[in-house]
Amino acid sequence: MSHNSFGHLFRVTTFGESHGPAIGCVIDGCPPEMNLSEAEIQPYLDQRRPGQSSYTTQRMEPDTVKILSGVFEGQTTGTPISLMIENTDQRSKDYSEIKEKFRPGHADFTYMKKYGIRDYRGGGRSSARETAMRVAAGAVARKVLGDSITVRGGLTRMGSKQINYVNWDWDEVHRNPFFCPDAEAAEQFKIYLDEIRKAGSSVGGEIEVHASGVPAGWGAPIYGKLDADLAGAMISINAAKGVEIGAGMTAACLTGETNADEMRMKDGKPVFMSNKAGGILGGISTGQDIVVRFAVKPTSSILTPRQTVDVNGNETDIATKGRHDPCVGIRAVPVGEAMMACVLADHKLRHRAQCG
Amino acid sequence: MSHNSFGHLFRVTTFGESHGPAIGCVIDGCPPEMNLSEAEIQPYLDQRRPGQSSYTTQRMEPDTVKILSGVFEGQTTGTPISLMIENTDQRSKDYSEIKEKFRPGHADFTYMKKYGIRDYRGGGRSSARETAMRVAAGAVARKVLGDSITVRGGLTRMGSKQINYVNWDWDEVHRNPFFCPDAEAAEQFKIYLDEIRKAGSSVGGEIEVHASGVPAGWGAPIYGKLDADLAGAMISINAAKGVEIGAGMTAACLTGETNADEMRMKDGKPVFMSNKAGGILGGISTGQDIVVRFAVKPTSSILTPRQTVDVNGNETDIATKGRHDPCVGIRAVPVGEAMMACVLADHKLRHRAQCG
Amino acid sequence: MSHNSFGHLFRVTTFGESHGPAIGCVIDGCPPEMNLSEAEIQPYLDQRRPGQSSYTTQRMEPDTVKILSGVFEGQTTGTPISLMIENTDQRSKDYSEIKEKFRPGHADFTYMKKYGIRDYRGGGRSSARETAMRVAAGAVARKVLGDSITVRGGLTRMGSKQINYVNWDWDEVHRNPFFCPDAEAAEQFKIYLDEIRKAGSSVGGEIEVHASGVPAGWGAPIYGKLDADLAGAMISINAAKGVEIGAGMTAACLTGETNADEMRMKDGKPVFMSNKAGGILGGISTGQDIVVRFAVKPTSSILTPRQTVDVNGNETDIATKGRHDPCVGIRAVPVGEAMMACVLADHKLRHRAQCG
Amino acid sequence: MSHNSFGHLFRVTTFGESHGPAIGCVIDGCPPEMNLSEAEIQPYLDQRRPGQSSYTTQRMEPDTVKILSGVFEGQTTGTPISLMIENTDQRSKDYSEIKEKFRPGHADFTYMKKYGIRDYRGGGRSSARETAMRVAAGAVARKVLGDSITVRGGLTRMGSKQINYVNWDWDEVHRNPFFCPDAEAAEQFKIYLDEIRKAGSSVGGEIEVHASGVPAGWGAPIYGKLDADLAGAMISINAAKGVEIGAGMTAACLTGETNADEMRMKDGKPVFMSNKAGGILGGISTGQDIVVRFAVKPTSSILTPRQTVDVNGNETDIATKGRHDPCVGIRAVPVGEAMMACVLADHKLRHRAQCG
Repeated sequence: MSHNSFGHLFRVTTFGESHGPAIGCVIDGCPPEMNLSEAEIQPYLDQRRPGQSSYTTQRMEPDTVKILSGVFEGQTTGTPISLMIENTDQRSKDYSEIKEKFRPGHADFTYMKKYGIRDYRGGGRSSARETAMRVAAGAVARKVLGDSITVRGGLTRMGSKQINYVNWDWDEVHRNPFFCPDAEAAEQFKIYLDEIRKAGSSVGGEIEVHASGVPAGWGAPIYGKLDADLAGAMISINAAKGVEIGAGMTAACLTGETNADEMRMKDGKPVFMSNKAGGILGGISTGQDIVVRFAVKPTSSILTPRQTVDVNGNETDIATKGRHDPCVGIRAVPVGEAMMACVLADHKLRHRAQCG
Repeated sequence: MSHNSFGHLFRVTTFGESHGPAIGCVIDGCPPEMNLSEAEIQPYLDQRRPGQSSYTTQRMEPDTVKILSGVFEGQTTGTPISLMIENTDQRSKDYSEIKEKFRPGHADFTYMKKYGIRDYRGGGRSSARETAMRVAAGAVARKVLGDSITVRGGLTRMGSKQINYVNWDWDEVHRNPFFCPDAEAAEQFKIYLDEIRKAGSSVGGEIEVHASGVPAGWGAPIYGKLDADLAGAMISINAAKGVEIGAGMTAACLTGETNADEMRMKDGKPVFMSNKAGGILGGISTGQDIVVRFAVKPTSSILTPRQTVDVNGNETDIATKGRHDPCVGIRAVPVGEAMMACVLADHKLRHRAQCG
Repeated sequence: MSHNSFGHLFRVTTFGESHGPAIGCVIDGCPPEMNLSEAEIQPYLDQRRPGQSSYTTQRMEPDTVKILSGVFEGQTTGTPISLMIENTDQRSKDYSEIKEKFRPGHADFTYMKKYGIRDYRGGGRSSARETAMRVAAGAVARKVLGDSITVRGGLTRMGSKQINYVNWDWDEVHRNPFFCPDAEAAEQFKIYLDEIRKAGSSVGGEIEVHASGVPAGWGAPIYGKLDADLAGAMISINAAKGVEIGAGMTAACLTGETNADEMRMKDGKPVFMSNKAGGILGGISTGQDIVVRFAVKPTSSILTPRQTVDVNGNETDIATKGRHDPCVGIRAVPVGEAMMACVLADHKLRHRAQCG
Repeated sequence: MSHNSFGHLFRVTTFGESHGPAIGCVIDGCPPEMNLSEAEIQPYLDQRRPGQSSYTTQRMEPDTVKILSGVFEGQTTGTPISLMIENTDQRSKDYSEIKEKFRPGHADFTYMKKYGIRDYRGGGRSSARETAMRVAAGAVARKVLGDSITVRGGLTRMGSKQINYVNWDWDEVHRNPFFCPDAEAAEQFKIYLDEIRKAGSSVGGEIEVHASGVPAGWGAPIYGKLDADLAGAMISINAAKGVEIGAGMTAACLTGETNADEMRMKDGKPVFMSNKAGGILGGISTGQDIVVRFAVKPTSSILTPRQTVDVNGNETDIATKGRHDPCVGIRAVPVGEAMMACVLADHKLRHRAQCG
């Protein structure tokens, strides 16, 4: 069962609420004798960390990760690796409004319907703060994958603004505050998001994640297909509403001729001449880049009042003041990378188990 | 682990190859004392069954399902339900070409890379024939869900042709050979697909599945979210390349104002005034219709020769003659419905387990 | 979840009732390119098959196993292997008595309490007939383990009669109808069991299973310990009530000095000078023989009337006539071997996954 | 997968090493709206805590448990409950000897063979310190079971000394330092263990755990049988070598007549007149007391030198000085109770899921 765990052989379990004492995770099944230190995990957390530019929430937390177990003298021991981040910025705030009212687009209503109780402070368990542990786990997953595999992503759309794929430059991703691989688009994003932010509004985003260097053969059909696991992993990210592999939804518009990734020999090896498949056929990696795209909805917390109801069944309005990301899609980039890395690490071990 | 199983409490394991003696499944965890007979499963299989119109493959198999266990005197006993369909149309065919050549878009290359061996007859395990067992399991899942929940789907796009949502009529779905909910679009599909078929080509499709009557509260965050499980289930369907929940990929284009599903009271109950969320918030059902859309790529087997390589590393071409669906999206409709039903049945039991 | 499945990477799911159309299993995760045929599975089934001597039930079924999937041209393909045995001896019998009465020692009462319904024909799902599929799966597991690992067992106790460990001779096991490794004890068993059988009574038994050649390092602490998995596997066998690893229950009587398996070097390798541990320390194999013992209770179906109640709450008596094993412990020997093989095969793959 | 997790719906994952910063666990699937506080968990930890009498190790740690998540305003929220105990008594000790030498009976050799690395400080992950988290989880499990179910255990054997079942008195269990239900035996244990301790030796023990008030119907055959899960759970406890359900290994000695638990009606309800079955038939609870017994071997750390080898392949001796339990069986009593409670809580939820 997997309420709060994912993966099978590289298995991650997370815990913690936005405003509880700590958030954390347990990573089970990690191979032994792998170098690992907090210093290797922290940089990924710093990428996701809020408050780094005016384009993300101003919640200020160092998000310092601590390894509690599973590492001895700088090496993994094969026992569960537990990581923890203490919550330091639990601003003493007045929660009376969100305690009573269901914020549209948030999980307030559904958590209440499911559990009959909810930790309303900062969204509790449903807060995107949980994704910090995905990023931490993803850093460990990258170590499992090794240097021959690169996982990286970028923001390809922000509301009505989209990148030009011709301009794609991986180096550009870390030069702008949006993880945008297109320098021109990044400029547009800046102007556009300033407007959105000033208006107290928010906007959705689209993220594309690539994994290069994945050998052909990973994935476990029929119900452990690599693409199915990736799709589930991406949609499990807060606010994600759609996911695409390769051609994605556009595949519906293609013909058999235009969709076929033809093959030729190159240097004695079979190569594909296109990648409509997104690097996956029959649920198994082809050896090409794995390409996954996902869309996240706009932040639900906005300044404009929205109609809602309260826990007592009264009609009311709600407007959210305070620190919120105008585009959560930005910080979803490192999260998407992390999920890709975790799914691949799991399948690396699964493949090794069955096929040696 | 779940190479060939899915679901946790309503758990389905499938087996079988396209041209082996039989395909089958084992459904574990089904509640006892539920009426169940082969006659209740067969109609769903008949919907998926090939050879029913000129728009699907002409492989002729009765696909008669047999219950091998788990049912006694017309009732489920709580023990595993095994269903089997014997393969009768194993046309003695010359497989020498696909034995040697990797068909672009098919899983030939990846199965070979993963396992070092493949049953090339009709695609073996990677054949869409496996989806018959999903449909059979889905029929059982519908019984678990009961009469208050309705799961139904339709074909919303075929290549360049799309339905007009204004015309949506559930009754229309079973009046045309495409499961299309728009009578006008169905007419267009007919003309369009005739051309495609005559040209020996194929085309992709988009399927939308709705579940009505699902109570608020189903879904198990963070890693058993209802939408994440649905996304994984849909992408696990052969040829699926993209999946959307509610607004889907379009969510990236929205603002916080346009995305919010506002709430009001109606007859003393909270209701939503729109359904951008597709009936799921925070991974938990809201009580609204659950709306999932997925895209399938065009059938990879086409008459036009495509460049490929063979198992010995020679460059070559391949063109596929013979019986193939010009648009596999059509038969993906009952499959998508079945996956929705299975995921919901699983979550019904998961919710009952934790929350009583 | 695992109502009817066991193992994680070598995963077995069984289905079927004693008097339904068939029993079967699905084995998932089996490595590809392994030779496998029905002829390699059948001999193990023949060992377990009833009606081979006067000391087992006279139910006569050929128990012919059929491979339905996962094998192509004599080799495993990495896809699920489904095995099936059709039930041929469904003697049209009068079940009216056991339909109404709860047989002491049987699962009649508990299945009824759990499910509210039960297939009373021959015990339905709770029948030891299900163990045929364990034996079939065990035959496949042996192939996964390879020739360097030997799994074999023997009957070490029958009621008040016990073997003399000094006489242990593996060759003897297949020379007597009891799988007894002590020729002298086998003679005693013969006389003893004849009496039991003629009296319409039954008697318990103790089985010891050894695995030789298992390398050090298999097992996945803390909750996938090799001994814990073996204990669960053995107790899951019908009628099993106790299980021991190495010294077993006797370990409670030892001191630290007598319990220690001391170590020396031999031919440059560390060796143990005793095996109180039964080949497992900390849940991980030591490289010594793995030794597991389990006890099965006497067959509950006996000629002597026993007090019971019926489904309507009336007090009554029941005596069971007809074909029953006077000592089910005999046929539990091949079943115990099979479970050992399956658990080891699973852990071979689990170890390979994590540790390479 | 379950390297470091157990249970399916009440799922416990533990982490931490004996001498790392902390040990902890994550409990997933716990029903919401259940009162829970640290004060309800601590008393169980105090029972297991070392240093409470001269009969247990003198390691002095307060073992103060802290709830990190899953509880809000004194109630469970349905989200994962994380518990943590910081390790305070990490005595700066000279580990050079056990770093190099494999201690007989310990997991030193096998961890090294499996992982190629081991945290040798205090046994690392293989230390019985991990059982503190089982006890903590068990306290939560008891809350899931509710007041109508009582889980309690006692020490029934210490080396050559055994209790007299006639004297069994549950109240006595907490009056002596051995959790012994027989006051007379407790006196004997005292004298006996003093000798053992003074000799620097150790001795094994046998623990019996009962669960009263469990309704008929829990357990999930065939591979989630209640007794199989209990057997696996008990053998997973450090040093456990044997486990028995009801009659246990003795069942091998019984006849069908003596083994049958006959039934009568009492106050309109079916009752059993004996409990050889230990409260479980066919893997499902009968409604009688569930009775499980397990044996733990003597502490492997003793003063008497034992022959062993070191990591470099040299023959050597080892004698363990310092704080160790002369009979780990004593502190295994609260651990056994905890495992029983956890398994039952899991099966309560599993039963509710399938059977409503």
